[in-house]
Amino acid sequence: MTREEALLKLEEFEKVSNALGHAMGIMYYDAATVAPKGSAQGRAETLGQLAGMMYELETSPEHEESIEVLFKEKEELSFVERRKIEEMHEGFEKMKKIPKELFTSYQMLSSESDAVWHEAKEKNDFAMFEPYLQKMFDMTKEIYSYTDPEKDPYDAALNSYEKGLTKERCDEFFKALREKIVPLIRRIQEKEQIDDSVLHLNYPKAQQEEFSEYLIDIMDINRDNFIIGETEHPFTTNFTKKDVRITTHYHENALASSLYSVVHECGHALYELHTGDELMNTCLGGGVSMAIHESQSRFYENIIGRSEAFTNLIYPFLKEKFSEQFKDVDEKSFYKMINRAEPSLIRTEADELTYSLHVMVRYELEKAMFKGEITAKDLPEMWKKLYKEYLGVDVPDDKQGVLQDSHWSNGNIGYFPSYALGSAYGPQILLEMEMELNLAEEIASGKLTKGNAWLEEHIWKFGCLYTPTELFEKVCGKFDPTYYTDYLEKKFSEIYGL
Amino acid sequence: MTREEALLKLEEFEKVSNALGHAMGIMYYDAATVAPKGSAQGRAETLGQLAGMMYELETSPEHEESIEVLFKEKEELSFVERRKIEEMHEGFEKMKKIPKELFTSYQMLSSESDAVWHEAKEKNDFAMFEPYLQKMFDMTKEIYSYTDPEKDPYDAALNSYEKGLTKERCDEFFKALREKIVPLIRRIQEKEQIDDSVLHLNYPKAQQEEFSEYLIDIMDINRDNFIIGETEHPFTTNFTKKDVRITTHYHENALASSLYSVVHECGHALYELHTGDELMNTCLGGGVSMAIHESQSRFYENIIGRSEAFTNLIYPFLKEKFSEQFKDVDEKSFYKMINRAEPSLIRTEADELTYSLHVMVRYELEKAMFKGEITAKDLPEMWKKLYKEYLGVDVPDDKQGVLQDSHWSNGNIGYFPSYALGSAYGPQILLEMEMELNLAEEIASGKLTKGNAWLEEHIWKFGCLYTPTELFEKVCGKFDPTYYTDYLEKKFSEIYGL
Repeated sequence: MTREEALLKLEEFEKVSNALGHAMGIMYYDAATVAPKGSAQGRAETLGQLAGMMYELETSPEHEESIEVLFKEKEELSFVERRKIEEMHEGFEKMKKIPKELFTSYQMLSSESDAVWHEAKEKNDFAMFEPYLQKMFDMTKEIYSYTDPEKDPYDAALNSYEKGLTKERCDEFFKALREKIVPLIRRIQEKEQIDDSVLHLNYPKAQQEEFSEYLIDIMDINRDNFIIGETEHPFTTNFTKKDVRITTHYHENALASSLYSVVHECGHALYELHTGDELMNTCLGGGVSMAIHESQSRFYENIIGRSEAFTNLIYPFLKEKFSEQFKDVDEKSFYKMINRAEPSLIRTEADELTYSLHVMVRYELEKAMFKGEITAKDLPEMWKKLYKEYLGVDVPDDKQGVLQDSHWSNGNIGYFPSYALGSAYGPQILLEMEMELNLAEEIASGKLTKGNAWLEEHIWKFGCLYTPTELFEKVCGKFDPTYYTDYLEKKFSEIYGL
Repeated sequence: MTREEALLKLEEFEKVSNALGHAMGIMYYDAATVAPKGSAQGRAETLGQLAGMMYELETSPEHEESIEVLFKEKEELSFVERRKIEEMHEGFEKMKKIPKELFTSYQMLSSESDAVWHEAKEKNDFAMFEPYLQKMFDMTKEIYSYTDPEKDPYDAALNSYEKGLTKERCDEFFKALREKIVPLIRRIQEKEQIDDSVLHLNYPKAQQEEFSEYLIDIMDINRDNFIIGETEHPFTTNFTKKDVRITTHYHENALASSLYSVVHECGHALYELHTGDELMNTCLGGGVSMAIHESQSRFYENIIGRSEAFTNLIYPFLKEKFSEQFKDVDEKSFYKMINRAEPSLIRTEADELTYSLHVMVRYELEKAMFKGEITAKDLPEMWKKLYKEYLGVDVPDDKQGVLQDSHWSNGNIGYFPSYALGSAYGPQILLEMEMELNLAEEIASGKLTKGNAWLEEHIWKFGCLYTPTELFEKVCGKFDPTYYTDYLEKKFSEIYGL
């Protein structure tokens, strides 16, 4: 096979692979948003078949040959082509090692397990989900034993979301956060707590939906390529950079919940909407890693969304729409309510300060599951124990405990640490951004056009051209969690008058 | 290949084919309901790829051999297996004849053309849709020239929705309706018209949505396997009998519009939900033909939904929800409003009596397009001319004219005559049903459980085991449009006091 033939083969491969991925993605989105309950079995069969085709495609001798040919001659290729081949070569080497039956069983399990999780959460019935969860961990571990036999399987899991991440690095990172954040929280707990009961009055869904549209306008998102839907657990998904979707969940007694879900998911969406055109429909299109992705979503959620400039910006809209609820709320008190820091039960609704501790619980549990120190049956009790230990809260039931997140039911094991790492990247990115623009002024203008443009120029457009570490260092230099802990200390000391 | 090997091959084929069909179906549904506008190009590429895979699958030498083996030995097979093979053999023979490039181009054209139609309708801009529409007719005709070279291409188009249907039969059928219905309409036009302005007051969408849910309850539909969505043009789709979906469109100034869309589409949905379990995931699952399908949907819409028993049943709900709008409306006047017969512009909102004349316009235009007597450019004017001639109405613009239906943009050419034929089947089915149950009493009970059970037993459960004509004759004997014209004459003579 010549290089030209191999390039043609590769082009054909990308077309079919994109089509299968696209179809499966739409089916997942449909399942999460509207599909009737009884459709799970049929969908599992279809997803199993499509995943089987994907597997055939990715492990075909022809594909192997074209990758080998191009990998050997990668120095002759353009930078984009070379990076593509490097990524594919690595993915291919891994995929080859997974037995096909294991791979299709895994796809079917994910789909079924997700449906069971939805029901289990609704019914607060961990027992019905437990066997699926155990199988999900077992199968994930088994897959890594094939793809990364030389690695610790949990390191392999971490790596699949953030290349280069290890348990050691995580242990150090969380230790650093614990040393700074836990004492900060203690000091805050000695002060008078902010009363945010206004945020828990009744906010009808229809008006919250209007509010979402207003937020999307502020984020300056192109509606031609974007929709917002409703699911149990908010997420972002994209099929091409021309079709990016977020979802939210409206709680009528918690205004900040959907507000910050929308801003968070819009951060993910903006990244996907603005990866380089030349990378579209290649494996390099889309965000490079989970931590970089979370650094963007949490940049919007916290550094932008929970800043005083932002709460001041959205205050008049809320004051008008919810005049009764907001009758005694001024701008400053709204800003403080939004930033009330208090250990709580639900990760996605946690405040900026205590958030990482929620992640730490999940990290410890994943590690223990992988080590075999515990099984799925132990998770509800271990969950309660660690929440008490790290956050000081009593978990009343599994719905508000181990069943709260969709990640494990979908097989996203090893994903959680990226959330904390992503949060920690933010303040360092802010520092660089502020050399060129004043973010508070940009926010006050009512449209994040210039902020978006800066992130597009420095991060988004590169897609997967660089590894996450290369990309971060290109923008910010070496990662140092001190920027993050300093940022939190400064912000919350001011708010609580420490 | 032995018979056993061929049966295994067939089973594998059905799995992959169902998976591809399922994925494509979900993508169409997604496109019609929620997908962002900018997603059309990416979706067209994916659908093109999936259709290409389907084509490869359906024309593979292995598949050919397994069908040939089984077709030769069909007398040795069970009735279900034999019917399956007969259907597949016929489909296979046709599919083989279509050049692959034509087939995939057609799939891509359908998808693009549908997106353009949506925009064209919105903007009332026929010119932007015209080239797509012309290509859609040309390509459809070209496909039939390959699959049915011996047939007149428009006969072939009619056949693909109703096996055995020809232009001659259609010409005769429409002639019969014209001779009875046109004079009936003339007599009605001499009487005082029913005032239905109440139905055109403001009916907020949120309350209409509640009303839809109430109607679905009356229809006794299992919600585990059913959802309702919103689209420009209402339709029904199904992926398995466990996942059946209808859509509607809410017009706030036309209460009856979504009401009868919902009842109509629920008729389609019930048929799909109740085909035999043993046919699930085979090519025999699902309704047998468009005319039989329409006979079910229009049975629910008209014979049930526009009966006095039904309008009496739903009257209290409407009186309560819309007390202001309904303040001067009694049951009898509501029944009459619902059955106001008057030539109008929009097919889907036409009354029971004039409906077939809308179909006749489309039939004549399709016939002329196929004959090459006219091109897409002529359609808007021809449409206006025929509406004046048959229905006596002036069509003010293309949005309310030739752009109103989605069928042509989706390639459903030759479909329309089934609507009229399906309507005409209804009264003959009613006659048989009423030998075993009193439909008016069943409706008055508030749940159509027994009516559904009768149709399931006599029609739905058979799926595609019999041809449409066999099935109809099994239930009703020979088709005779006189039952239909008699039914209309009796009903509308009473309403208008003729």
